[in-house]
Amino acid sequence: MPLDQSAKPNAFSKVGTRPLRPDGIDKVTGRARFGADMNAPGMLIGRVLRSPHAHARIRSIDASEAEALPGVKAVVTAADFPDRQDEFRDVLVNVMARDKALYDGHAVAAVAATSAGIARKALSLIKVDYEVLPHVIDVEAAMLPDAPILHDTMFTKGVEPTPTKPSNVAARLEFGRGDVAAGFAEADVVIEKTFRTEATHQGYIEPHACLASVGSDGQGELWVCTQGHFMVRDTCAALLGMDISKLRVTASEIGGGFGGKTTVFIEPVALALSRKAGRPVKLVMSRGEVFRASGPTASTSIRVKMGIRKDGRITAGEAELKYQGGAFPGSPVEMGAMSAFACYELENVHVVGYDVVTNRPKQAAYRAPGAPMSAFAVEGVVNDLAERIGMDPIDLRLKNAAKEGTRSAYGPTFGPIGLIETLKAVKSHPHYKKKLGPNQGRGVACGFWFNFGGQTCVSLNINIDGTVALAVGTPDIGGSRASMCLMAAEELGIPYDRVRAIIADTSSLGFNDVTDGSRVTFASGMATIKAARDAVQKLCARAAAIWGIPEDAVVWEEGAARPAGPNAGAFPPLTLREIAAMAPKTGGPIAGHCEFNAENAGPSFASHLVDVEVDPETGRTTVLRYLVAQDAGKAVHPAYVEGQFQGGAAQGVGWALNEEYIYGADGRLQNPGFLDYRIPVASDLPMIDTVIVEVPNPGHPYGVRGVGETSIVPPLAAVANAVSHATGIRFTELPMSPPRVLHAMDARRMAQAAE
Amino acid sequence: MPLDQSAKPNAFSKVGTRPLRPDGIDKVTGRARFGADMNAPGMLIGRVLRSPHAHARIRSIDASEAEALPGVKAVVTAADFPDRQDEFRDVLVNVMARDKALYDGHAVAAVAATSAGIARKALSLIKVDYEVLPHVIDVEAAMLPDAPILHDTMFTKGVEPTPTKPSNVAARLEFGRGDVAAGFAEADVVIEKTFRTEATHQGYIEPHACLASVGSDGQGELWVCTQGHFMVRDTCAALLGMDISKLRVTASEIGGGFGGKTTVFIEPVALALSRKAGRPVKLVMSRGEVFRASGPTASTSIRVKMGIRKDGRITAGEAELKYQGGAFPGSPVEMGAMSAFACYELENVHVVGYDVVTNRPKQAAYRAPGAPMSAFAVEGVVNDLAERIGMDPIDLRLKNAAKEGTRSAYGPTFGPIGLIETLKAVKSHPHYKKKLGPNQGRGVACGFWFNFGGQTCVSLNINIDGTVALAVGTPDIGGSRASMCLMAAEELGIPYDRVRAIIADTSSLGFNDVTDGSRVTFASGMATIKAARDAVQKLCARAAAIWGIPEDAVVWEEGAARPAGPNAGAFPPLTLREIAAMAPKTGGPIAGHCEFNAENAGPSFASHLVDVEVDPETGRTTVLRYLVAQDAGKAVHPAYVEGQFQGGAAQGVGWALNEEYIYGADGRLQNPGFLDYRIPVASDLPMIDTVIVEVPNPGHPYGVRGVGETSIVPPLAAVANAVSHATGIRFTELPMSPPRVLHAMDARRMAQAAE
Repeated sequence: MPLDQSAKPNAFSKVGTRPLRPDGIDKVTGRARFGADMNAPGMLIGRVLRSPHAHARIRSIDASEAEALPGVKAVVTAADFPDRQDEFRDVLVNVMARDKALYDGHAVAAVAATSAGIARKALSLIKVDYEVLPHVIDVEAAMLPDAPILHDTMFTKGVEPTPTKPSNVAARLEFGRGDVAAGFAEADVVIEKTFRTEATHQGYIEPHACLASVGSDGQGELWVCTQGHFMVRDTCAALLGMDISKLRVTASEIGGGFGGKTTVFIEPVALALSRKAGRPVKLVMSRGEVFRASGPTASTSIRVKMGIRKDGRITAGEAELKYQGGAFPGSPVEMGAMSAFACYELENVHVVGYDVVTNRPKQAAYRAPGAPMSAFAVEGVVNDLAERIGMDPIDLRLKNAAKEGTRSAYGPTFGPIGLIETLKAVKSHPHYKKKLGPNQGRGVACGFWFNFGGQTCVSLNINIDGTVALAVGTPDIGGSRASMCLMAAEELGIPYDRVRAIIADTSSLGFNDVTDGSRVTFASGMATIKAARDAVQKLCARAAAIWGIPEDAVVWEEGAARPAGPNAGAFPPLTLREIAAMAPKTGGPIAGHCEFNAENAGPSFASHLVDVEVDPETGRTTVLRYLVAQDAGKAVHPAYVEGQFQGGAAQGVGWALNEEYIYGADGRLQNPGFLDYRIPVASDLPMIDTVIVEVPNPGHPYGVRGVGETSIVPPLAAVANAVSHATGIRFTELPMSPPRVLHAMDARRMAQAAE
Repeated sequence: MPLDQSAKPNAFSKVGTRPLRPDGIDKVTGRARFGADMNAPGMLIGRVLRSPHAHARIRSIDASEAEALPGVKAVVTAADFPDRQDEFRDVLVNVMARDKALYDGHAVAAVAATSAGIARKALSLIKVDYEVLPHVIDVEAAMLPDAPILHDTMFTKGVEPTPTKPSNVAARLEFGRGDVAAGFAEADVVIEKTFRTEATHQGYIEPHACLASVGSDGQGELWVCTQGHFMVRDTCAALLGMDISKLRVTASEIGGGFGGKTTVFIEPVALALSRKAGRPVKLVMSRGEVFRASGPTASTSIRVKMGIRKDGRITAGEAELKYQGGAFPGSPVEMGAMSAFACYELENVHVVGYDVVTNRPKQAAYRAPGAPMSAFAVEGVVNDLAERIGMDPIDLRLKNAAKEGTRSAYGPTFGPIGLIETLKAVKSHPHYKKKLGPNQGRGVACGFWFNFGGQTCVSLNINIDGTVALAVGTPDIGGSRASMCLMAAEELGIPYDRVRAIIADTSSLGFNDVTDGSRVTFASGMATIKAARDAVQKLCARAAAIWGIPEDAVVWEEGAARPAGPNAGAFPPLTLREIAAMAPKTGGPIAGHCEFNAENAGPSFASHLVDVEVDPETGRTTVLRYLVAQDAGKAVHPAYVEGQFQGGAAQGVGWALNEEYIYGADGRLQNPGFLDYRIPVASDLPMIDTVIVEVPNPGHPYGVRGVGETSIVPPLAAVANAVSHATGIRFTELPMSPPRVLHAMDARRMAQAAE
């Protein structure tokens, strides 16, 4: 049977339904095994010694007393990792400080001992001789000519000629087209503002945790909570100087990631400890360590200038973005810059970005990395432009919205996209007609995310009872196992509950890129469909052999092989279960496989609408109503799509209103815990309404687009626009925490009083 | 590149070498994780209540007191397993007694509790009301008309008309050809003798152990020490009424199996306990439980009659085999019958076999199941025939040996086989020329095993650094991971240590038959070769795309793709490592897969030679020299082939000299422990010499034949022939333990004194 890999079913019978996720009951009953839930005989407990200084030269480390403590089986420092000067250099130095501690919490040594108490005691016995250096925390301060320099050998990239003086600016980027000056000249209104966002943390419930075991023959295993165990394997192998095949990594269940578990922190340390001790080592971060030494997102300073005609047509957009990404290059400024104006059809656009290092932990991805901050700035200006020309903010956006055929601000021309549909969905929603009371405000914002594809492998094995085992390589952070089962069931024509998806370990399946970029339902889903079609081809071949007719005279319909063409009706159909039962006698087990590099993920757009009420006495903002309308392409499991919409909005609300990294003058993080770093809890949020827009992605056989990230892009701006609307004060700094809002309102009261 | 799946390399560069096995260091350092080495949070300890009676009706089981004991979380009995009347009935009833306890040690209930102590205490609180019934232990006694009947509904199969009276004879089989009466008439010498063997145990070091976890949604996981985790999955799913896809089974390292871990005992019980308790349950057998309630081999009574002409030509062979396989049908009598005369070219042959049940634990496979006993009988008679006609026992065997073209005694015609080559190897070995001293004797015997193929799946994944992860589905009981790596390295043209093989879990790979039948190096090896060739085809396709030439213009040689034909030399070769590094940009990960049902395993023959000395004062036999010559087809890893030869011989020596199940008059096993059940220890054995004969198996691309089982077929006979030679007394019963040998020598002394 010739298979058209892009063929789309005429009608879905499984996809679009809402069955229970296979990990649901395990997670609510506690049976699910997370990173810290694995043990091994002879296991040691690891602990990491971390720098108390934001910036310090490490003159020496004396671990002799710690090593002599009974029960201590290994102490490791940077000396236990082979040095590297390649693309793994930064992660190596981040994992264990070499020469300098670059931020409060930077790992400088680690111990493995027979108990947590001994390990803790051992840490206190390690003597680190620090030479404390001046530090810099703020992104603008780090760019000043006389700022303390983190890396003597770092010279700004993207500047001609290459500077000879080291700088905290790792790179400068610039792109654009048209003539922004002419665009601004053409405008009736031009607004230019600078916006600032603080670093926030993904706030996943589960701290980083792993169990490492390396034998004296150099073969290792790692059990770890991660968004990408293949990435963990390849990175750890590089950092430890191992062959990739010698390390087998199994992903545990994961208690949240949101991008923060797309790199390594403690994993190479645990492996190094185990290798040195010759015993398994469990290493679990405390919450304080998670805040101080995992990967929060960048803090930013973003200047945006936009011009508009009175008819609502935007004439030009300009942005200058400064993102600090912690102590190493790699802030998400590029993605922030590319996404800044992506929602709009702009002829004249100019964007400059700076990737800056500071004495903070190296940032990691956080849901649509870089985009919420630039959307905060751009959507804030768009909001103000609408106000200034007296146009409905949705109408203004509809007039300028990117659509199929639009050449995006960052280059490529969009295919079919759903921005306009999301704007219309918001505009026609009852929420948009609700009357606002005193101290209440309404905000609208749009958001964009690229969506990734990437390397993906799936194996689908048919059991003798006709049930199916689906081996996927992308950790399930949002219900993807359910979606994969739905897609496999759809293709095979069997009930959902006859398919069980598992996350295979790194030795059992080919390489899979990390679960990120909103890529899994798209890419692993497409791999599942391809693997299922591969299996269907084999099922048809078995049926053909049983019937003694050519393979291409068999079709697969409704879960059964059926003779087709001239043979139609010649034999009763053979169901999947029947063919599976005969497999041992017709050639052996039946499987389908797919290894590929997924492309054409198809961008996703969203429009958010939020109503808030700001307490004039306390500055506290209450979110009254929240609506997310987003293009999912095709919602494979609508409940989990809605969950992604709601989760992104919830996290964005926290980012907008309360969350921030607070550093003292000494460069130390002052709020490394959930008591002082305030994420939204259930009582902080209303039910978040959702509208799933479905503009099919032509790059996927079912039209799927990723949905996990776009939902966090608009909320910073939407909430800021709403708070500004409620208070009459334009807020340009996040978080809009009660003290900051109160301060602004007090300042206005004093100014009004002074008038 | 068109691939000839049967193509054989011109010369091997990896296969035939002796690198370290990947599990070696782990096993000697204790890092390897066996069945009891896995734990889970909230884990309970399981314990099984076993019948103290050989045969008893279970009137009732009252577990109320046990259930009320604090810390007890579940008690299960047969009522907790759905009843079945299909092919799983016997294993179901063996796993947990229904209605009757059929042997000493038969499970009747099980508990899961928060500690081993509480579990033990709980067992003592379970009240089982037994009605003790008469029992039968001996195979001949069980066949008597008035024997106690185990199964009221069992009527002998293979008898016309089907009997109406229940019997302990589960089945009778018969086959043959020619005219044995005429053959015996033609003979100059006819010898007829009856031989008896006792049940022996495989004696694996590691008791059965598992960790089961079933969630309230019916999804389960099992960690288990087994020779076949796919079999465990499918069997347990059937016994618990689960979809196969709902159960994921991971094989631990295995501390020996030898066939004894090819079925389930405690695994369904652990799953049932976990399902009932809602918590993970660890269940580990004690050594006593292993002896009483796992699967020893059959005990037998075998009558053999053979005739010979003075010129050494065997004229006819007849055998009647009675095998008791414990309390359920399924003794290996059929394989014993088929293999009995397989070494000989016989025109007149007649074999009858009886599969008998007794009040003993249900037998399991033990290395070449059924064959050592029938070889013991046949090779004993052949030995005596040689003596009677005064012919060298090797010459006699050479004259009658099966060879290519021989129609085997059990039917099929042999292809290329190596029996004659093994006999010649023994005859020309220095051992055969050693002079014997007083009380010393020499024995020769031959052996045959069918060798199996079966369902097999392998996935081969190429990592970005050019190393290879090989996922195999057959637990490694004899170094097979090393052999698989050698074959993958051979095909890919890369060093051995760049390939790492792992045993994938049941959800990550297609179905694999059990590691048994000497099938793994053959079948998983062939699957590895096929998967590697599949990967090579993809590697060549990538190279072709990189070069922009047709795929069929690329060949794979010495670990690199090379342009061929008109393009030869047009581009420098691309090594596997280079293509792997480019994989992300040329289409994604590269893998090879194979799912198939292996056929044409190719039988294996061996000839053994042993010298013994029998102490006339104690009857103790010392093995002085031992030589194994066996056909391996092609020895992939010669050291592990030799290890199999030596291991089979060692176990056979134990079976011949000391090992036996000893039952009291009450039907209870009297020696359930290694102190009273004596397996050979290092000091009991000389270095066992080996000769690897290589007559390639045309059914495998490298010529491989299985080697694990044939090696245990000749030793019973070889040692018996040697002891008989040393003592001048024909021993026909095993074990030839010191008391039995002494008794025979004493009897002769008394008889001689009486003359």
